[in-house]
Amino acid sequence: MQLKLSDRIMKPDFQGEFTASILAAAASPDIISFAGGLPNPVSFPIPEMEAATKKVLEENGVTALQYSSTQGWPALRKWIAKRYETMGVYDVSADDIIVTNGSQQALAMIGAVMINPGDEVIVEDPTYLVALQSFHVFDPSVLTVTMNPDGIDCDELAEVVKNHPEAKFAYLIPNFQNPTGLSYTQEVHDRVVEIFKSSNVLLLEDNPYREIRFAGTATDSFGKELGEQCCMLGTFSKIITPGMRIGWICVRNKELKAKLLNYKSTADLHTNIFSQMVLAQYLADNDVDEHISKIKALYKAKSDFMVECLKKYLPEGCDLTPTEGGMFLWVTLPNGLSALQLYYKALEKGVAICPGDPFYEYKRDVSSFRVNYSNSTDEAIEKGVKILGEACKEMMEA
Amino acid sequence: MQLKLSDRIMKPDFQGEFTASILAAAASPDIISFAGGLPNPVSFPIPEMEAATKKVLEENGVTALQYSSTQGWPALRKWIAKRYETMGVYDVSADDIIVTNGSQQALAMIGAVMINPGDEVIVEDPTYLVALQSFHVFDPSVLTVTMNPDGIDCDELAEVVKNHPEAKFAYLIPNFQNPTGLSYTQEVHDRVVEIFKSSNVLLLEDNPYREIRFAGTATDSFGKELGEQCCMLGTFSKIITPGMRIGWICVRNKELKAKLLNYKSTADLHTNIFSQMVLAQYLADNDVDEHISKIKALYKAKSDFMVECLKKYLPEGCDLTPTEGGMFLWVTLPNGLSALQLYYKALEKGVAICPGDPFYEYKRDVSSFRVNYSNSTDEAIEKGVKILGEACKEMMEA
Repeated sequence: MQLKLSDRIMKPDFQGEFTASILAAAASPDIISFAGGLPNPVSFPIPEMEAATKKVLEENGVTALQYSSTQGWPALRKWIAKRYETMGVYDVSADDIIVTNGSQQALAMIGAVMINPGDEVIVEDPTYLVALQSFHVFDPSVLTVTMNPDGIDCDELAEVVKNHPEAKFAYLIPNFQNPTGLSYTQEVHDRVVEIFKSSNVLLLEDNPYREIRFAGTATDSFGKELGEQCCMLGTFSKIITPGMRIGWICVRNKELKAKLLNYKSTADLHTNIFSQMVLAQYLADNDVDEHISKIKALYKAKSDFMVECLKKYLPEGCDLTPTEGGMFLWVTLPNGLSALQLYYKALEKGVAICPGDPFYEYKRDVSSFRVNYSNSTDEAIEKGVKILGEACKEMMEA
Repeated sequence: MQLKLSDRIMKPDFQGEFTASILAAAASPDIISFAGGLPNPVSFPIPEMEAATKKVLEENGVTALQYSSTQGWPALRKWIAKRYETMGVYDVSADDIIVTNGSQQALAMIGAVMINPGDEVIVEDPTYLVALQSFHVFDPSVLTVTMNPDGIDCDELAEVVKNHPEAKFAYLIPNFQNPTGLSYTQEVHDRVVEIFKSSNVLLLEDNPYREIRFAGTATDSFGKELGEQCCMLGTFSKIITPGMRIGWICVRNKELKAKLLNYKSTADLHTNIFSQMVLAQYLADNDVDEHISKIKALYKAKSDFMVECLKKYLPEGCDLTPTEGGMFLWVTLPNGLSALQLYYKALEKGVAICPGDPFYEYKRDVSSFRVNYSNSTDEAIEKGVKILGEACKEMMEA
């Protein structure tokens, strides 16, 4: 039989092919991988999850195993809504939350309900590669805005928003941006609010790492000032478990919410209700802030140690973007050296990094790369960074 | 802010609007609902699931809560592959299985990787309304083939396949078809095989109810004779739990498999691994056939009782399609009376049914309706069918 596929799936997928090859390379047990973004198992509350499951199945087993609603488990949505108070937003209700199969599904849902082929969307440059990949499925025209050390470049953003009033949305990651690890300062935050207030563009705020801040002060959610003009994505993947695939969209525009629910109902009916209830039970019975404080302490130590190793082993001229939280560091090679070339060279020596290219919509052969510290032992960090340093030196001497 | 949505989501969605209104109507505690398709809680092995969860978390907790692979948990895929032996297919391997977020996601994935706008797809007439809805997202041209008491109309099917060689796939439900409850006879099965063998059209076999046969003999899967020309969808929703949203695609064409995995990786990365591992543990530690025999005994009793009530309370001239399994009965009113009108009339009296209209791509104001028996008490069945009979009589006398 000759297979007849859709044009949609036959398009080139730079990000997808790239990550597939990185994952394949990093899957070898002999490789020290800084390429992925796996949380440390310290963030998985295993005995507490066992207790929560027992309680859910004994007290409410039929509901946990039956079909459920597309929007998600009310107790879980209530917890999520309340959590926005820690981000300065006090008027979110459980009714504004849609539970998704990981926040990745939220990206796909937003793409599906908003993007016609050729529609403009605005992203940070660089940005989360899987967001680019999810949006590409719907063939948008992607407008990029430079990321500066203090957050998105506001002059550029103002210009893009002004010149492209029909842009569907801007996808922004204000805390520990992926891949740069940078956060928006209060000043940048305030200017972004002003830019969007006078526009008709939806702000899509993604905040997967916000809870993992080990220094500095976080800005509030853009939802505080922008109300229903801001859709907020979130996830339990970095603070409790990615394996359960539970994320959410906080959407206060009623029409957009209805359309997202319509789309999700055809995409997979609803998110695993068993896991939603177990997670809600865990959250009700445990002090999640105490749990998160353990993650923060560990990640701070790992980040500090990796920074120390990078400073020690990388050759002079490498630039290290400072971060105050999250799971990644962003390094730039001197003299326009190719991060992709470093990726191949380091891989030969047994270390995987994530070169910057797939995080950019247009730029190729960039000099920056991303390294992850959350799930490596200190021993692996030291050994891996040392090898990385040797690979850099060889490139600089070549 | 003025919302700017995609054309995709603004299209009319007859099936979606219809089911939403039925679900809303049936959600009232005062309504006896035969409209949905909820499994009976007898199919939920609650204590066994608790034991399986405990074992998974204690022995393999980190894996259960960490990110995982897009294709799914190997032990679960192995079980599913082996199960095809009960359907006459001995050459399925774990590598041919993709675990999906319910078989509904499988429908959406197939639509995404195969359908360009205007592409032809073939369906039974009537067919599963959510399959129609899932395919509509991708704007196909839908070709319909009549369902007869012995299965799909083979003369019509042969004609359609011959005249539309470029059709992307045919979506068929050979056992206890939704909504009619009909199954393909061996003769029809054999003719269908011949029709597809000489064509270039993929056969998409959906079999959610196959395990719940309480009379007669099942035909084998079309995958036995058609090999990689047949993609098989399956689900644990009707035999163990729909709440965990675990279904699958069995795809033996390597290129199609790769594209489905690409698409799923952007749609939601992977299916909940915690639930996949719990389910695999349950399957390893329990006799699933013994479990299914309990479901079959209960559903047979409920089906028999509902048939008895329908014969007793519906007026003369109503036609009842016999079934040998599954969860539904299909009833046709005499003299072209409108099932939709009956739906409204019965709802006023406190009983919800599912009128036939949304199961058809083109036909409207049909005389048939679907009733579900799996999750109602005998008391509710008798009371509800009696009211349905009264509503019918009023319509016939009007």
